[in-house]
Amino acid sequence: MPSGTPQGFSDLVGLEFTDIEPGYSRGVVEVSDDLKNPHDVVHGAVLYAMADTGMGGALYPKLDEGQRCATIEVKISYFEPVRSGDVICETDLLRDGKSVAYLESELRNDGTVVARASGSYSVFTP
Amino acid sequence: MPSGTPQGFSDLVGLEFTDIEPGYSRGVVEVSDDLKNPHDVVHGAVLYAMADTGMGGALYPKLDEGQRCATIEVKISYFEPVRSGDVICETDLLRDGKSVAYLESELRNDGTVVARASGSYSVFTP
Amino acid sequence: MPSGTPQGFSDLVGLEFTDIEPGYSRGVVEVSDDLKNPHDVVHGAVLYAMADTGMGGALYPKLDEGQRCATIEVKISYFEPVRSGDVICETDLLRDGKSVAYLESELRNDGTVVARASGSYSVFTP
Amino acid sequence: MPSGTPQGFSDLVGLEFTDIEPGYSRGVVEVSDDLKNPHDVVHGAVLYAMADTGMGGALYPKLDEGQRCATIEVKISYFEPVRSGDVICETDLLRDGKSVAYLESELRNDGTVVARASGSYSVFTP
Repeated sequence: MPSGTPQGFSDLVGLEFTDIEPGYSRGVVEVSDDLKNPHDVVHGAVLYAMADTGMGGALYPKLDEGQRCATIEVKISYFEPVRSGDVICETDLLRDGKSVAYLESELRNDGTVVARASGSYSVFTP
Repeated sequence: MPSGTPQGFSDLVGLEFTDIEPGYSRGVVEVSDDLKNPHDVVHGAVLYAMADTGMGGALYPKLDEGQRCATIEVKISYFEPVRSGDVICETDLLRDGKSVAYLESELRNDGTVVARASGSYSVFTP
Repeated sequence: MPSGTPQGFSDLVGLEFTDIEPGYSRGVVEVSDDLKNPHDVVHGAVLYAMADTGMGGALYPKLDEGQRCATIEVKISYFEPVRSGDVICETDLLRDGKSVAYLESELRNDGTVVARASGSYSVFTP
Repeated sequence: MPSGTPQGFSDLVGLEFTDIEPGYSRGVVEVSDDLKNPHDVVHGAVLYAMADTGMGGALYPKLDEGQRCATIEVKISYFEPVRSGDVICETDLLRDGKSVAYLESELRNDGTVVARASGSYSVFTP
């Protein structure tokens, strides 16, 4: 999933991965008006999209050939509103279980942590 | 926030509210290719956007004049992939506290429950 | 896991199941000083223990012979402090997947909803 | 809440704080049969009690005089079963907001991370 590959929804959000390694990813979104809610703040779902996609990005390179993963659940907590600049999402795989993986994402806006997320993913062979 | 009002990000997702009452909302998204991930499945962040926006929609009409709300956290759990048809998100306010509200959303795709979410919102006067 | 069976930690909390069916459980704890924190309020972990144990109780009768389950994650949200009386925890299995189950618990204290929880469980054959 | 102070439920679990500073706490529980479920594994609620109590322990020293805190919600994710030895829970305050605080706990059993938790707390003046 290199930067530039068409990704449907992630394109809508404008997410670009600057780094994808086994167990780690780093994505960036440049804030634009399209991503805001009526209160001129970036919609929480944009940050969520960065975390969920970032978790998939960090987990995929760890899978064996033929394996797939699916989000079981994600919880995201918001600390500060985002109004301008870039949002960077760094994700780490913290538990690489046989059937369930656990990842955490931290989102920063111009150096300030604006949200943190944790998610469980099911790993399986279809 | 009547259906049709420009909402920035919610417009990107194509979310239309068919019902907003104090403590309840119902939104609909028609599945399109733009909303999918590379595996031809609707991106989890689209369902998340419906839940988070639906929680705001159900909570806003309960606020006093001058009050605002902000998402503290949301957890969303996924049950089934969504590939076509409509997604309906119904949200209920289950706890209407002075400073913290709690809401739950259920998302259905052509009758099947595909995700459930719960969220905490801070209620405050800026 | 019928009422009265020794359960180690659940005994510490004084949890009694009044109903266990496939996909449903109902447990009761009578509030005592042992279960309180220094502010004279029942410790949140007691309500958590009821939910987590109740989810296991509702899920076990749905498993095939030889299958086991393990908690992936649980989120619990608190609405009201509990000081006296009985706490009742009702749990429903909402998604009975092949490898991941999803359950929700509602906890009431003398008729008032005091907490709600949702959990993901891994189902596997050791 | 120095080590040794009676704490009701935390005493049931046998939790001892070895360190409490503003924004940080470290607690220990020695595994015993009382804390296990029927499968000879420490009950998830014991780990939860460590996290929830540890979050309160880390947050209290940061409060102003007269302020109180209450758990809004906690999500805990389990990685490995615990059967013997000590469990250590370290908690950090990651967001110290005016009305909502966010904390994370990591639980280790003889060096292995066995669970992680994140929680939101309401901070208020009664």
